[in-house]
Amino acid sequence: MNSGPARRAVTNVRVHAIAGDQVVERPDRLVTEEPMEIRVQGPSGPAAPVAVTMRTPGHDFELAVGFCRTEGLVRTSDELAEVRYCVDLNEQEYNVVTVALRRPVDVEAHRRVVAASSSCGICGKTTLDEVAVDCAPVDDGPTVSRETLLSLPDTLRAAQAVFDATGGLHAAGLFTPDGELEMLREDVGRHNAVDKLVGNGVMNGRLPFSDRVLMVSGRLSFEIVQKAAVAGIPVIGAVSAPSSLAVAAAERFGQTIVGFLRDGRGNIYTNPERITTGVA
Amino acid sequence: MNSGPARRAVTNVRVHAIAGDQVVERPDRLVTEEPMEIRVQGPSGPAAPVAVTMRTPGHDFELAVGFCRTEGLVRTSDELAEVRYCVDLNEQEYNVVTVALRRPVDVEAHRRVVAASSSCGICGKTTLDEVAVDCAPVDDGPTVSRETLLSLPDTLRAAQAVFDATGGLHAAGLFTPDGELEMLREDVGRHNAVDKLVGNGVMNGRLPFSDRVLMVSGRLSFEIVQKAAVAGIPVIGAVSAPSSLAVAAAERFGQTIVGFLRDGRGNIYTNPERITTGVA
Repeated sequence: MNSGPARRAVTNVRVHAIAGDQVVERPDRLVTEEPMEIRVQGPSGPAAPVAVTMRTPGHDFELAVGFCRTEGLVRTSDELAEVRYCVDLNEQEYNVVTVALRRPVDVEAHRRVVAASSSCGICGKTTLDEVAVDCAPVDDGPTVSRETLLSLPDTLRAAQAVFDATGGLHAAGLFTPDGELEMLREDVGRHNAVDKLVGNGVMNGRLPFSDRVLMVSGRLSFEIVQKAAVAGIPVIGAVSAPSSLAVAAAERFGQTIVGFLRDGRGNIYTNPERITTGVA
Repeated sequence: MNSGPARRAVTNVRVHAIAGDQVVERPDRLVTEEPMEIRVQGPSGPAAPVAVTMRTPGHDFELAVGFCRTEGLVRTSDELAEVRYCVDLNEQEYNVVTVALRRPVDVEAHRRVVAASSSCGICGKTTLDEVAVDCAPVDDGPTVSRETLLSLPDTLRAAQAVFDATGGLHAAGLFTPDGELEMLREDVGRHNAVDKLVGNGVMNGRLPFSDRVLMVSGRLSFEIVQKAAVAGIPVIGAVSAPSSLAVAAAERFGQTIVGFLRDGRGNIYTNPERITTGVA
């Protein structure tokens, strides 16, 4: 983990475990879910809160920066002056992260927008008009072979350390077109796992991810497709079902999405030309 | 469905289906995900938007009322004057629902709060202080036998019509203490499925659900526990893992939560005295 203590991703508890007619009290491990407040600050003036997201501790700075990027508060790494935990509060909490920018930012104006949206992408927006995303279509990007595509879920699953401990995590993996897992992020919120990947890309000046494939562990919603589009990701795989709006968004942004990608199968919903399947 | 055309819960598309080295183009069905704007209106004055949630069409009025209840905008059915689709817009969209109240409501003041939160429970809130829930502990409620508890997942799953078609839905079921499924709601957002149950309770004057058990299809997050607490539900089962904050919230509200409830097993995380397991 590059920020925050890694051990906090897992919380130890005791449970009464039922198995048929047996009941035993034993220790168990839960995925940690804690609120994190994201603040943004310009070169002058105080840091202002823009959102609180429920997240799994770890890669908190990436999450804060990725959230700011997918919400349009930050565009490039050049704009970042510093990312830090708040020291005004009880520092041991590590639950307030400030993104300091080199350029002036009208935090109040942004706050109205961002607070009205949420890291859940949509749910907090207050009018239908705010749902529209200001986002260009992705580049053509790579092609991915069917064999590589079918290998992604096993690679992702094998790398999920926290899931193994708790069973309670979403995962997002950034893959090369050859199926190599380049970066994995886990979180109790699937949008956060993607924001962490995006934040890493911003902090390292690597966006757009035009030559990468995103693989997510669960279902594919509109918000994930949207966040991937902001990061320029052209191909998205998901272990489970996409929603209707995920497919519509992928069509709009020119992305290829593959759902139900598991057990040697997968359904290509949009732009199948990026998958070399042998289809005529 | 009591509101909105039922067929819209499923969207038909065509896919390229990969199975090993076979690829066939065939029809597929997706769970519908569409934004719904919720507006609130007092006895005088215009309706004002308070939130947009991504939801699966169906039971839209319940969703709107349940959202207002879990956000504190509505307390009882007596306060409801009318719930309606907006007729100013293209009526066929059915994506704007107005909750009209009998009492004056300072929509702007509420909007500031509600817009800053979201139907995702937490993610849009702008400061950590806003995360705290104003909610009393639940009643002692019923006891549930181990056998009944273990039967809930199969009963829930058997009733999931839209899931069968799409594989893309979260489900929330309201059960009697004897394991009878009283009400099932499905949605692409798990918080929405619970809000629909709560909204039904408000509209029928049935809250609190002190003698009921909530069973959800996926993981158990803080927001679900919080919404159940607002509805007075004392026992919650989930097919998959709870988060650390879900367990902490259940302790605070006096609820019993059981996770990994499937295949004749389950882990009781809090208040095991409501489950008659034979544990000494």
